[in-house]
Amino acid sequence: MTADLLIRNARPLGGPATDLLIRAGRIVERAPGLSAPGVPVEDAAGKLALPGFVEAHTHLDKTLLGMGWHPHGAGPRIIDKIDHERALKGPLDIDRVAFPQSGLLRRPGTLELMDRALAMGVEVVGGLDPCAIDRDPKAHLDAVFALSQKHGRPIDIHLHEPGEMGAFSLELIFERIRALGLHGQVTVSHAFCLGAPDRDLVDPLIAQLAELDVAIMTTGPAARPAPPVARLLAAGIRVCSGSDGIRDTWSPYGNGDMLERAMFVGLRNNFRRDEDVALAFHTCTRGGADVMRIDGYGLEPGCAADLLIVPGETVTDAVVSRPMDRVVVKRGAVVARGGTCTRLVA
Amino acid sequence: MTADLLIRNARPLGGPATDLLIRAGRIVERAPGLSAPGVPVEDAAGKLALPGFVEAHTHLDKTLLGMGWHPHGAGPRIIDKIDHERALKGPLDIDRVAFPQSGLLRRPGTLELMDRALAMGVEVVGGLDPCAIDRDPKAHLDAVFALSQKHGRPIDIHLHEPGEMGAFSLELIFERIRALGLHGQVTVSHAFCLGAPDRDLVDPLIAQLAELDVAIMTTGPAARPAPPVARLLAAGIRVCSGSDGIRDTWSPYGNGDMLERAMFVGLRNNFRRDEDVALAFHTCTRGGADVMRIDGYGLEPGCAADLLIVPGETVTDAVVSRPMDRVVVKRGAVVARGGTCTRLVA
Repeated sequence: MTADLLIRNARPLGGPATDLLIRAGRIVERAPGLSAPGVPVEDAAGKLALPGFVEAHTHLDKTLLGMGWHPHGAGPRIIDKIDHERALKGPLDIDRVAFPQSGLLRRPGTLELMDRALAMGVEVVGGLDPCAIDRDPKAHLDAVFALSQKHGRPIDIHLHEPGEMGAFSLELIFERIRALGLHGQVTVSHAFCLGAPDRDLVDPLIAQLAELDVAIMTTGPAARPAPPVARLLAAGIRVCSGSDGIRDTWSPYGNGDMLERAMFVGLRNNFRRDEDVALAFHTCTRGGADVMRIDGYGLEPGCAADLLIVPGETVTDAVVSRPMDRVVVKRGAVVARGGTCTRLVA
Repeated sequence: MTADLLIRNARPLGGPATDLLIRAGRIVERAPGLSAPGVPVEDAAGKLALPGFVEAHTHLDKTLLGMGWHPHGAGPRIIDKIDHERALKGPLDIDRVAFPQSGLLRRPGTLELMDRALAMGVEVVGGLDPCAIDRDPKAHLDAVFALSQKHGRPIDIHLHEPGEMGAFSLELIFERIRALGLHGQVTVSHAFCLGAPDRDLVDPLIAQLAELDVAIMTTGPAARPAPPVARLLAAGIRVCSGSDGIRDTWSPYGNGDMLERAMFVGLRNNFRRDEDVALAFHTCTRGGADVMRIDGYGLEPGCAADLLIVPGETVTDAVVSRPMDRVVVKRGAVVARGGTCTRLVA
């Protein structure tokens, strides 16, 4: 599941060129002119090194995005198939959300399904529009927080409710976090209500998000009010991003590219200066790691060797250009070049 | 400047596969199974045929987008250089706007420069935020309309003014169109004021745009109020789109791709159904031709052979996927494949 690799002449986040030595899937040295006999070499030729993208919110189960024919490469035994499947899943680490897409209360049996999913190991408890969809915000949120308490799992509530309705649902969420001491355990996704123009409505919500360490996920939606990323980060709030649906029955848009997603977040927040575009990039990288509590994330010695080599002069250049000529490294192994998987991580 | 070409097995706008015979730069036949001995053949292999994109608003003079080294291929005589330059410009038809980017009144000499540019043949009179930038809407608009009258040229006013201020400027524009009989001669670009949520403010403006045949240009801006494309088109208003700045000192974003622009217009207007995404595509193709009064535009026999061959199942597929594997045909000549210019149009 891990590999050794010497990356030569890469520029981490657009800084000076350096080498990165990876052993057993972890960055162990970062300095120019490293040598490591017998270790495979990847010449980055002065390209950027970017930390691995963190897709913090997507409905992979629903995507219709076309995939090419997958040849049946597994051996004859059951264990061959298990290993083959695990190898294919190597390039991604996935946390799952038990998410009530059609409502938790209005579809009988959903609560029990979520309970079973969490008992089977699903990592996060999901919630959805307590007022607008389930029509009973108290019962919905009580059920979500009870599942969290029962299984000891964090919470991700998809909150599309705008304006005052969304603010009301947020207040109900805050009350439960306070009562149960769940600081740092809750993410609110979309949170369109934070994009309302009324600062008297929004600012107290932002203050409570910071106080209770509630994280926010935004896709940078062009046609909806959107959480103000710069103000949230300035308040110390953890902010991540994600694709949401990728070409599914809800919407034809999306390709799963988190570098393009950083562009959408930047465009939606009118980020133009390099230091502002860096905030959009942050939501698609370290911000996601902060929200998903990913240990050892980054390009420093000691970090897991999950990174990309991407053409470009600066991080902003990469975000606005979105080049496809990328090398993707997972735990030290090159797993994709130019948009094509090159090897399985076994 | 024109060429013959037989395009086989293309699907115009996603319809049934057919052949397109082009002679002297114009589509002359459209039917399956055409034959034309001696004419070069382009096999579209079932891909889409799309009409040429119409970029109706861009500040090309300001772009910093990187270009590769351009070899000096012109011959020794002056006429060689003129012919070389004209050949390079063949793949594009360009209308220019004499546009007062820093204000028309507040920068002395600008009005005289615009007058000279129009006398030298520049095609359109530009205007800019009569209130917000020039601080004297009456004088600004009187000057713009006077230039239009003097040189017999249409008008394109870049109106970023939001809400009531923009509505006021629009009313002043309407008054002058009525007084001078300039119906169908004016485009208002950006027109953020039409994206105001107050229908009592916006609906009367839309009614007058329709009455006076004023065209609207929108980039589909994610961080600004935006004209409602579907409502404008339903009112019979001509709507086009454009890149605006392409990686310039105002903004790092943009690549000039009008297929991507159609996606931005679609995202900004929350167009998800195929028939709605088609409206976004319209603003980047025929809508632009309607605004710029391009004759012979389209994929029918008799139209100029300006078109693209693009992978995809449907127009919506092309808009959301934005494949780069495109063949660009200008006046019957293949001028680009896969993002690279393949020949000059001489």
